[in-house]
Amino acid sequence: MSDTHEGQAGEGADEVSAAILVIGDEILSGRTKDKNIGYIAEYLTEIGIDIREVRVVPDDPPEIAAAVNALRARYDYLFTTGGIGPTHDDITADCVADAFGVALEVREDAVSAMRNRYPELELTPARLRMARIPEGGTLIDNPVSGAPGFVIGNVIVMAGVPKIMQAMLDNVAPTLKGGKPLLSETRTGAIREGDIAGPLGELQARFPETRMGSYPGYTDKGFQTSVVVRARDPQVLASAIAEVEKMIAEYRRD
Amino acid sequence: MSDTHEGQAGEGADEVSAAILVIGDEILSGRTKDKNIGYIAEYLTEIGIDIREVRVVPDDPPEIAAAVNALRARYDYLFTTGGIGPTHDDITADCVADAFGVALEVREDAVSAMRNRYPELELTPARLRMARIPEGGTLIDNPVSGAPGFVIGNVIVMAGVPKIMQAMLDNVAPTLKGGKPLLSETRTGAIREGDIAGPLGELQARFPETRMGSYPGYTDKGFQTSVVVRARDPQVLASAIAEVEKMIAEYRRD
Repeated sequence: MSDTHEGQAGEGADEVSAAILVIGDEILSGRTKDKNIGYIAEYLTEIGIDIREVRVVPDDPPEIAAAVNALRARYDYLFTTGGIGPTHDDITADCVADAFGVALEVREDAVSAMRNRYPELELTPARLRMARIPEGGTLIDNPVSGAPGFVIGNVIVMAGVPKIMQAMLDNVAPTLKGGKPLLSETRTGAIREGDIAGPLGELQARFPETRMGSYPGYTDKGFQTSVVVRARDPQVLASAIAEVEKMIAEYRRD
Repeated sequence: MSDTHEGQAGEGADEVSAAILVIGDEILSGRTKDKNIGYIAEYLTEIGIDIREVRVVPDDPPEIAAAVNALRARYDYLFTTGGIGPTHDDITADCVADAFGVALEVREDAVSAMRNRYPELELTPARLRMARIPEGGTLIDNPVSGAPGFVIGNVIVMAGVPKIMQAMLDNVAPTLKGGKPLLSETRTGAIREGDIAGPLGELQARFPETRMGSYPGYTDKGFQTSVVVRARDPQVLASAIAEVEKMIAEYRRD
């Protein structure tokens, strides 16, 4: 395949290139085993985007900013994972803002996204860290735990927790230019992922032209799961979503 | 955590740094899921070597040579995996020889290593590719399939197949200089990461010789967060963990 990797991003008529940047000491120490690289690589390959490079860097501001700038200049897209939680070592938003030379402030739409998910949650300074978005960025919905990711320029900033990252990737994928456009719909209900795992597997088998994913979360009111269906054909997508709605109605517990 | 990552390799009295370079289109396409990064990271952390960076690059000669030169200059060791098999796209040895500016020839000791393992093996040109070692390199025994890895300068070149890579790492590990190993303790409680983010940041500031991380999850019973503290000094670790225990007792919700 090396012929597809020569030269810079965007040289081919319909080649779209990308890199992945994984941020976190816990990956470099081996304490946490990365599950995102393989997932993102396979996902983007399917929608016609070629991953050309991956880097893993520590929770170190100059390292992160340098990698962001090197990779966003070189490829059509840069996908980052990790470092957008509430703690002192969650510094990805700061480093991306530095890399772009823009301000980083708490944004009302990000606060609203978190409040919508957890109406009674106390918005501590630590939680408000997660609502800081680099100026000019647009939010990526996080159906699992509320705190959003964001897109700025050609950089897509996602969580490190695999389930959250996967949901964010589903949400951002329809906005990406790729070899083949992919449509996506989401339905959410008060269901447990364990209850629908079997039925969802059967639905996936009935609709082989779609990709179905489920993303469990936990709110103040209990379990809630989002089901995402992706397909290239809008009619196939509509048929599959209708079945997902029936399934959610059958298994919901509220 | 960033204070431990500033500057170049080897700055600390007993810090030994390393990078991992994973070579292969199959990882970037997602067809093969990497299992080596996490394994090597955990292994080296245990023997006191800090992994500071990981890169994955395609089977593309200039990309590989550039990454080898960037990473070997910056860290005490560079570990590569992949690209030393018999096929046309196994070009790691070529690229490492280029990066060092040395010749690459079939070596008798490498041929012997392969013959010892498989006396009746026909040494086709494809197999002899695997006996080409950059000038000045020393062999790493491959007890699984015979074809050796090699060490040249501070670069350790290993196979991509996990079982073979793991055996090679065992063989080369006793020759590596290691720092003081990093100790680690974990405490888990029914706490929300957002609640302890502030207090944990304060604790990190009070114990600069440690690295503290928090890892949220949820179970059927609700939120649960693990706090990990790592340090080289056992007394510092014990003092920090005692404070973490107090913090968890204060914020737990069960």
